[in-house]
Amino acid sequence: MSSEITNEYVHALDRQFVFHSWSIQSTLNPLVIAGGQGCTLWDYNGNQYLDFSSQLVNTNIGHQHPKVIAAIQEQAGSLVTVAPATANLMRGEAAKRILSHAPSTFSKVFFTNAGADANENAMRMARQFTGRDKILSAYRSYHGSTGSAIAATGDLRRVPNEFARGHVHFFNPYLYRTEFHATTEEEECERALQHLRRVIECEGANSIAAILLESVPGTAGILVPPKGYMEGVRALASEFGMLLILDEVMAGFGRTGRWLAMDNFDVVPDLICFAKGVNSGYVPAGGVMISQPIAEFYENRFFPGGLTYSGHPLAMAAIVATLDVMAEEGIVDNARMIGQEFLGPGLKALAAKHPLIGEARGVGLFWALEMVSDRVKKTPLAAPVMAQMKAAFQARGLLTFIVENRIHVVPPCIVNPAQVAQALAIFDEVIGEFSSKHAA
Amino acid sequence: MSSEITNEYVHALDRQFVFHSWSIQSTLNPLVIAGGQGCTLWDYNGNQYLDFSSQLVNTNIGHQHPKVIAAIQEQAGSLVTVAPATANLMRGEAAKRILSHAPSTFSKVFFTNAGADANENAMRMARQFTGRDKILSAYRSYHGSTGSAIAATGDLRRVPNEFARGHVHFFNPYLYRTEFHATTEEEECERALQHLRRVIECEGANSIAAILLESVPGTAGILVPPKGYMEGVRALASEFGMLLILDEVMAGFGRTGRWLAMDNFDVVPDLICFAKGVNSGYVPAGGVMISQPIAEFYENRFFPGGLTYSGHPLAMAAIVATLDVMAEEGIVDNARMIGQEFLGPGLKALAAKHPLIGEARGVGLFWALEMVSDRVKKTPLAAPVMAQMKAAFQARGLLTFIVENRIHVVPPCIVNPAQVAQALAIFDEVIGEFSSKHAA
Repeated sequence: MSSEITNEYVHALDRQFVFHSWSIQSTLNPLVIAGGQGCTLWDYNGNQYLDFSSQLVNTNIGHQHPKVIAAIQEQAGSLVTVAPATANLMRGEAAKRILSHAPSTFSKVFFTNAGADANENAMRMARQFTGRDKILSAYRSYHGSTGSAIAATGDLRRVPNEFARGHVHFFNPYLYRTEFHATTEEEECERALQHLRRVIECEGANSIAAILLESVPGTAGILVPPKGYMEGVRALASEFGMLLILDEVMAGFGRTGRWLAMDNFDVVPDLICFAKGVNSGYVPAGGVMISQPIAEFYENRFFPGGLTYSGHPLAMAAIVATLDVMAEEGIVDNARMIGQEFLGPGLKALAAKHPLIGEARGVGLFWALEMVSDRVKKTPLAAPVMAQMKAAFQARGLLTFIVENRIHVVPPCIVNPAQVAQALAIFDEVIGEFSSKHAA
Repeated sequence: MSSEITNEYVHALDRQFVFHSWSIQSTLNPLVIAGGQGCTLWDYNGNQYLDFSSQLVNTNIGHQHPKVIAAIQEQAGSLVTVAPATANLMRGEAAKRILSHAPSTFSKVFFTNAGADANENAMRMARQFTGRDKILSAYRSYHGSTGSAIAATGDLRRVPNEFARGHVHFFNPYLYRTEFHATTEEEECERALQHLRRVIECEGANSIAAILLESVPGTAGILVPPKGYMEGVRALASEFGMLLILDEVMAGFGRTGRWLAMDNFDVVPDLICFAKGVNSGYVPAGGVMISQPIAEFYENRFFPGGLTYSGHPLAMAAIVATLDVMAEEGIVDNARMIGQEFLGPGLKALAAKHPLIGEARGVGLFWALEMVSDRVKKTPLAAPVMAQMKAAFQARGLLTFIVENRIHVVPPCIVNPAQVAQALAIFDEVIGEFSSKHAA
């Protein structure tokens, strides 16, 4: 079949039969991808793309890592699927490896299909464990799109989906667009914690089961929390008998240059949600790491949650191989080094040069360029201009992840200095062109 | 690694690190499974099991179908994953094949990770399309475990998870334990429709977006609706401007001896949810088939839902190969024939023989034995006895799917007469033994 396949055929097939996420269907013009390797993807015409999106910030080990592909093929050949009620070798091995990257207080893993249902199950555990109902989460957050996870989500995609109760949102720190009239990171941190304390007091601490928080909010803009914030949130949760759930779905497993993004801070949560990077999304998988008191709680109580593909052997084999490869090949260290020495300084230099960039911020290989038409007023660059810019990057062979007025710069964690230089040059050229037209 | 693997090692690894669905963790003793082929599974000691559970009623093509395994391995080798925003060959081909089994009014597919998020997204579409909020679904139903899907669920697993509003439940037909004091299928059907009309009137038709219904409720007990019921539900939905969403997650793709379970009735819904059988769960996948008016609605409106692994290439390749294999090998016809000629009559004969069986009911390869300690009072057989019976089946090499006081008899759709005879003989022997001890 593949010898006759063309971009046109695949594009037409998609437009005829496939309904897409988060879109107005008639406006879609999806890019055709035929294959990939490492940081590169290509179509059926031989056009190549340098992937600085990691798709949806998930292919941390890059595309088609041969050892992980081989592990998937081998598992497919022996036992592709089995029910979650059985004991499965790869499931146990995957859980063991995942827990080796968690704080020592963590003892079990509950597997899900992806990040949304990881958050769903963590909230379910928190509600049962505390006997309380409300979940606090940040306005600037994304926690998934199922019925309760979307209500916990802070960004505006939650609004048409608000059919759950007991979800309260607070403002998280974001100095560039401070909600607290702060002028320094210290002030932003102190005031954000004061605000969170007031929300807890006003909602009634005894009604709140958990604070759910991305360790580094991703889709919301890669908002690395200021020094002391996470520690302050942990202290508040403990003071009021609430659990702390950290959502590591996008930020975890190498993205920030650490195994978990929480390793950038001095914080130990009660539950940790993961997906994406745990196996680079090679096979759909997610889960919840469970700390000992909560695991113990369920030793003699019924856990009212589950799913058909919990701990799916193919997904588990991909986790085992991915985590082994990441350790063997120093992929997390590479992400930290490339971020510190090449990508971070390069993006900061672009921000210093181009007035269209309001801020460059990030950690590891988790960076955002916040694009503004007026640097003083911080006016977000208009959506049509952002779309044109994305097209201009793509025309030069660079795939980016655009959210609102931001370019999220999130290459695979195996990226090398030459590829970073190539992407920075394209950013420089395109943003330079757009600056002359759109900067105030 | 595999040469040293033992049942004991895998079991211990599981108990140390893996948190299980729908369980009291300390009571678990999970069966170790090392591999499988067709209707057979085995452990590391060479013990073999005849799988009459299809795991969680998903491996409709049996275990390790060589053509589907090869397709997964081939896709893994070319493009294991890609973002949903791209156009992907296998995603288009999968959608095309799925729609070929739907009514001609269906035009697009939105892919999800599994059944729960398929239902989530169908409800989201129904709410937006109608501008109404409430979802009606049956008490005897299971629609998944995410925040809103679990609230839509009728069985008692919903209660600890009731954190969504706008979900109303009605009683669906079930003559054996009628809620309507009916004595015939005709009466049960007529009264169940009258009840549904009254619920709609009392909730306010203008507030109800959709009726969500399993074509044949599965986990709730394999409740094949009486003749005329589905047609009556469709008429009510149309009369009151509500959508009809059919959940085909468990019953679809061969299980009932038809491509879709709805093909057993004269009914055309507005949205169809699927998962499990669409690729036998070889790779996690689900989705929503969308009829033309709803697809058209979203041509110029933003759809506020999505997920990272929507249309995952590996899952899509498994769908394409599974549906092709099912067609080429006549697997759906086999399910119908085996059900009609061997499994159905065999289970009915057992019910006539053993007083412990209150009713044998089903269609295709989707059957339940309802176990009772008193045939007149229809007293459900106690849970500990059901657990002992499950263990007795397993000791004789037969895997079954037990829910409450029922044995769900759901072999892969490739099962042959000899395997059915083998299972029936084990049922006969074990139920006979238990009858002498537990029947009133």
